[in-house]
Amino acid sequence: MLDAPIMQRLRRLRQLGLAYLAFPSAEHSRFTHALGALAMGTRAFDELARRGRSFFGSEADVAYQRRLVRAALLLHDVGHGPFSHACEAVLGIRHEARTSELLELGNVRRGLEDLEVSSDDALGLILGDPQSRFPALRELVSGPNLDADRMDYLQRDAYFTGVASGRYDAEQLVASLRLFERNGRLAVGIDARGVVALESFVMARYMMFASVYFHHTTRIFERVLQEVLRELWPDPRSLDSIDEFLRWDDFRVLDAIADEPSEAARALRERVVPYALAAEFNAERDLSVFEACETALRHRFSAENVWADEQSQVLHRLPLGIGDERTVWVATPAGPIDAREASDLIAKLSGKAFWRKLFVRRAGVDVDEARHICAEIVGRRRSVAAR
Amino acid sequence: MLDAPIMQRLRRLRQLGLAYLAFPSAEHSRFTHALGALAMGTRAFDELARRGRSFFGSEADVAYQRRLVRAALLLHDVGHGPFSHACEAVLGIRHEARTSELLELGNVRRGLEDLEVSSDDALGLILGDPQSRFPALRELVSGPNLDADRMDYLQRDAYFTGVASGRYDAEQLVASLRLFERNGRLAVGIDARGVVALESFVMARYMMFASVYFHHTTRIFERVLQEVLRELWPDPRSLDSIDEFLRWDDFRVLDAIADEPSEAARALRERVVPYALAAEFNAERDLSVFEACETALRHRFSAENVWADEQSQVLHRLPLGIGDERTVWVATPAGPIDAREASDLIAKLSGKAFWRKLFVRRAGVDVDEARHICAEIVGRRRSVAAR
Amino acid sequence: MLDAPIMQRLRRLRQLGLAYLAFPSAEHSRFTHALGALAMGTRAFDELARRGRSFFGSEADVAYQRRLVRAALLLHDVGHGPFSHACEAVLGIRHEARTSELLELGNVRRGLEDLEVSSDDALGLILGDPQSRFPALRELVSGPNLDADRMDYLQRDAYFTGVASGRYDAEQLVASLRLFERNGRLAVGIDARGVVALESFVMARYMMFASVYFHHTTRIFERVLQEVLRELWPDPRSLDSIDEFLRWDDFRVLDAIADEPSEAARALRERVVPYALAAEFNAERDLSVFEACETALRHRFSAENVWADEQSQVLHRLPLGIGDERTVWVATPAGPIDAREASDLIAKLSGKAFWRKLFVRRAGVDVDEARHICAEIVGRRRSVAAR
Amino acid sequence: MLDAPIMQRLRRLRQLGLAYLAFPSAEHSRFTHALGALAMGTRAFDELARRGRSFFGSEADVAYQRRLVRAALLLHDVGHGPFSHACEAVLGIRHEARTSELLELGNVRRGLEDLEVSSDDALGLILGDPQSRFPALRELVSGPNLDADRMDYLQRDAYFTGVASGRYDAEQLVASLRLFERNGRLAVGIDARGVVALESFVMARYMMFASVYFHHTTRIFERVLQEVLRELWPDPRSLDSIDEFLRWDDFRVLDAIADEPSEAARALRERVVPYALAAEFNAERDLSVFEACETALRHRFSAENVWADEQSQVLHRLPLGIGDERTVWVATPAGPIDAREASDLIAKLSGKAFWRKLFVRRAGVDVDEARHICAEIVGRRRSVAAR
Repeated sequence: MLDAPIMQRLRRLRQLGLAYLAFPSAEHSRFTHALGALAMGTRAFDELARRGRSFFGSEADVAYQRRLVRAALLLHDVGHGPFSHACEAVLGIRHEARTSELLELGNVRRGLEDLEVSSDDALGLILGDPQSRFPALRELVSGPNLDADRMDYLQRDAYFTGVASGRYDAEQLVASLRLFERNGRLAVGIDARGVVALESFVMARYMMFASVYFHHTTRIFERVLQEVLRELWPDPRSLDSIDEFLRWDDFRVLDAIADEPSEAARALRERVVPYALAAEFNAERDLSVFEACETALRHRFSAENVWADEQSQVLHRLPLGIGDERTVWVATPAGPIDAREASDLIAKLSGKAFWRKLFVRRAGVDVDEARHICAEIVGRRRSVAAR
Repeated sequence: MLDAPIMQRLRRLRQLGLAYLAFPSAEHSRFTHALGALAMGTRAFDELARRGRSFFGSEADVAYQRRLVRAALLLHDVGHGPFSHACEAVLGIRHEARTSELLELGNVRRGLEDLEVSSDDALGLILGDPQSRFPALRELVSGPNLDADRMDYLQRDAYFTGVASGRYDAEQLVASLRLFERNGRLAVGIDARGVVALESFVMARYMMFASVYFHHTTRIFERVLQEVLRELWPDPRSLDSIDEFLRWDDFRVLDAIADEPSEAARALRERVVPYALAAEFNAERDLSVFEACETALRHRFSAENVWADEQSQVLHRLPLGIGDERTVWVATPAGPIDAREASDLIAKLSGKAFWRKLFVRRAGVDVDEARHICAEIVGRRRSVAAR
Repeated sequence: MLDAPIMQRLRRLRQLGLAYLAFPSAEHSRFTHALGALAMGTRAFDELARRGRSFFGSEADVAYQRRLVRAALLLHDVGHGPFSHACEAVLGIRHEARTSELLELGNVRRGLEDLEVSSDDALGLILGDPQSRFPALRELVSGPNLDADRMDYLQRDAYFTGVASGRYDAEQLVASLRLFERNGRLAVGIDARGVVALESFVMARYMMFASVYFHHTTRIFERVLQEVLRELWPDPRSLDSIDEFLRWDDFRVLDAIADEPSEAARALRERVVPYALAAEFNAERDLSVFEACETALRHRFSAENVWADEQSQVLHRLPLGIGDERTVWVATPAGPIDAREASDLIAKLSGKAFWRKLFVRRAGVDVDEARHICAEIVGRRRSVAAR
Repeated sequence: MLDAPIMQRLRRLRQLGLAYLAFPSAEHSRFTHALGALAMGTRAFDELARRGRSFFGSEADVAYQRRLVRAALLLHDVGHGPFSHACEAVLGIRHEARTSELLELGNVRRGLEDLEVSSDDALGLILGDPQSRFPALRELVSGPNLDADRMDYLQRDAYFTGVASGRYDAEQLVASLRLFERNGRLAVGIDARGVVALESFVMARYMMFASVYFHHTTRIFERVLQEVLRELWPDPRSLDSIDEFLRWDDFRVLDAIADEPSEAARALRERVVPYALAAEFNAERDLSVFEACETALRHRFSAENVWADEQSQVLHRLPLGIGDERTVWVATPAGPIDAREASDLIAKLSGKAFWRKLFVRRAGVDVDEARHICAEIVGRRRSVAAR
């Protein structure tokens, strides 16, 4: 399965897309991430099976679910196009949507058959199907919180960008994983002794988001890239065909734009940065100051020269996926409790995040003036608040 | 100065006291920490001097302050007795109070004279004197926030305990240090590009507190140790003499109790754990549930079998030292702002922390029953809250 | 200079070529290596200038040489084609030979002029010109022993392959660098206190060679790649043009062979390994046993099914570059001595290395039989030797 | 067993004795090493049992040997006195000799009985008894080559001294361990795929010896310590009693000499270095130059001012324990071969090492003159050799 073309293609898709323009060594591929997620998920599954043997039926049952979770993790990213997010924005098809088609390809289906894994089951885990027969495995594959996908990529991205604060106690987190029965369904949670490891995981998620995933340089070039892809693929429908889609990868895109005369293509090739950061908002309780700044900039420099970026545009979401139905359960002597009750830190980091960045286009804007306009508004609001 | 007896004595005081009973490899001494703080502080000072040359007068001025901050960091812990905090609790004298006497010792005074450093200036930095002529250096030495003391010990303690999440981006934090003039006084702060490094520093502080400094095993043995020291030093006044005080170190205490017949001494020697954790409270908004549990336990098992520990009893305080006068300033285009405004995370981690642990004495208490009592109260309150 | 197209192109040349087929995470580019060599070389130069100020003339002299060594290190790899060695073998032009042409390109020449660096001087350092006016800088750039190129790539390759034994004490090695006057010329060497660091550097070189650079999987695919490139470029002369040459990089080659029907192209795309290792020879004093095995295999399976690989075919040479004129000098109280006299280990690792690997083509050979034939010969010779 | 007094005492014996006077952070204890050796040995045993199941009898057999090797590794160092080697030199009893007496202590014997481990079997492994019924386990415990003792301490000493080059690929080495039947007895060796890991292990051994174990500062203070211990224990026989012996540890010795007026005691307390290195010999093929230097120094400064140290005086022996009967076997297709045949590097590092250091006593000798005398002799011999 590892040597199948759709897997080898992942060697030509970078895990962090264009982040290498901000962190030069972030050149690692989705292929190494798939191997890492597989390894991490195997350890997580083995821990769950060892500690919660009673939640499984026969030995054959355990063996099947182990094969299933491994296959799903190996394949979970095959639907990505070149530079993932930018590609989805331009083509209008999410990578998950490609996956079902890809699992139907002859050699993939045969590969899964050889492994004695149902492709429907695998697909359910990858797409996070709420009806999946295996809700615990679904959490391991597609989250939203305790997935081997994120467990691997946080560590991996920290290693390859060199951002020390992205590391966390993975070994202890995995060792504390436990199965729970909540509302008649199986869920993955942790033992109370693992709360500190879970905190370190939540923090790593926060730190990597702040340092890497929402880095202004990366965000700027992802926007530039969208322009480039629109030029490259004037008809997005031409990539609907799965064969054509699979021909494209990061390397081919970069090769294809080698002679493109457009400003965007040149910006990408020669690392010309067309936007500048006018202000950023990372500690807000509401959006009013941000909105005042955005309005002022648009008014002064016209709308097409101003771009407001928000964290929800980033693939790696910031806050914990905690809401009505889903949370991380923690086993305590007083029964399972919500992770937000077990940890001060997790409670504090689980709320809504109003993060915004305001960019201006260098070509049409006096950057210093733009920064000054925002600084003034921020300062005025602050002095009002302090009264 | 490094080979002076009061410095060499630090080799026999462990940086983390009894934490080695929970983290076996935490055997590092205050001597290595003093070297580390010196190195870190030198780098921090050089950065401040390089970036904020205008805040200094002559070259001689820079040179003097460099010698001063180095001497103060080297000597900042010489006043510690064996097992620091337990010793202070028993003897009733804080380590800072010993320091002025120690700096007056003949060989220390001569050492400082050889270095051309005023011992009064050094003392002011070590004790955090609000009247110090060098408020920026005082911050580097005694905090409360950006001190080389903490910058070193967080990294060091993380390394020697093996707790990965205690690491932070020290290099970037130091590189972002800047001098500010606030309210007519010099203060240390950071450049806006260092906010992520500051966040990682604040997080490391949080994680080390949660994992190591407030670890229940360490806390239990520190309590046991106090009993042992009271037996060993029935007259605390006998250690008022600085000569007698200096004769004591961790090694000598352990040697002195080798034949002590008391239960406490035996507990320490053979690692018998006399208390058990009945409940802990790490995500509270108030103390009412904790207090209800404490009352119930005292009522059921009698007061002397119950011990409520709180984070303020720990030397390494948890929240940032942010209050009326002091904060961490961040340089932005809109002028210096408070770190809590620059960072969502720092804002969230700066509030009051109501952390408590409830212990019961194993000898007189059915531990399972005690845990059950607390679990019931916690569960009942929670279901009320959820209504 | 960093954003010049010939530099940005290095992002699409992998430092270790096809080694990612054996070590999946070895995906780092020559661009990050160029940045690393620049950083390492700057530190090395600053140490030499600080310790050996008398070997330089004016301050301007120091400043020029610093700019020069930095520019040369940044540019030292721009002449590489896709997959370096395989490309050179097929095109018959060594990467150094391209460099002089590249430094003459308009934007590069202007870049060097802006930095006030003579392109002739830079070229002399990169090509290792024996007549260079700056023999010490030449050693820092092109070795053969104490070059920042190797200092960076050993560490970097160890980090990205995950091979722990490739690490060495770089900080101490750099801190021990010194200038010497030998035979009327300036040479780079080390202080006696750095001998252990030099040993660790020599060992890292040995270990990386054994584990990574001469890894059988990498070697096999490099051979396969040569076939692929010959198909891709039937007329090698077409790449003599520097413009055409620069259009090619690793990414474009992989993209170009996406539809190639040949067996070699398919082997590369799908990671099919067409050769098997029949025997390897790593501890030989002569080549007689190797030659006996090679002869026997050729005789049994015909010559075209047998391939004998030797370490001198690998770019990163194994033994120290020590010979008639060049060595590493070590400063001792008894005057400069040869590193082989200062260190038992270096003496032992500096001799000729008779390393060989014998491969057979899986398609035409019974691999077990081939291994058996070699094992027999090896065993027979050994029992003779033991008599 | 872990909380038994003879184990807890190991917390007060430092793994590297006085090396902290050269490497300040080398303060780790034999207790943490015992835990580490236990962990490493368990992994090694499990690998051997998994790969070589046929070499064992029943499941009970495997289970017994696992308990046995774990108990032996935990206890292997309990016979050490304060500062190990210096203590043995003064008292004339090797630590292994104490061990049999210690295993007979009531609580230890009962501890072993509880674990269902025969104390005779454990003793045989610890002492390296050639008649042991378990020759493979004996290798894991007491070497001479593939023991978990050394596997742990190399890594640990590298970590706590900060000497990067002492690290090696432990995981791969353990994964390559295999059982062999040689000359009718079971032996531990490795699979051919582990040769590079074995090389890294041999190199780590070499590097740690060169950097740490044979460091001149450590060696000097170990000599000073012997003087101190002779003063402290004028009658070595008084420590023959095991009770009295166990009362002594590193901490108590340092405490006991706090008021000793002798020069040696003061040297140790205040880190005064009474010897200076006049010359060292690390790359010799014979001892003639060393002997000429030693003779010249003794002649010039009188014998009592000169001290010749040799590597065989150090506990951690340098060359591989390869001789008539013992070696490391490597499994290859051509049958088991000696590691020296499998690896060029191991062959080169396995020979005799003529390492010597010549010290002179600072009090009675002009150090510069002594160095000059040696430098002259070394230089003269070299120029003869070069002819």
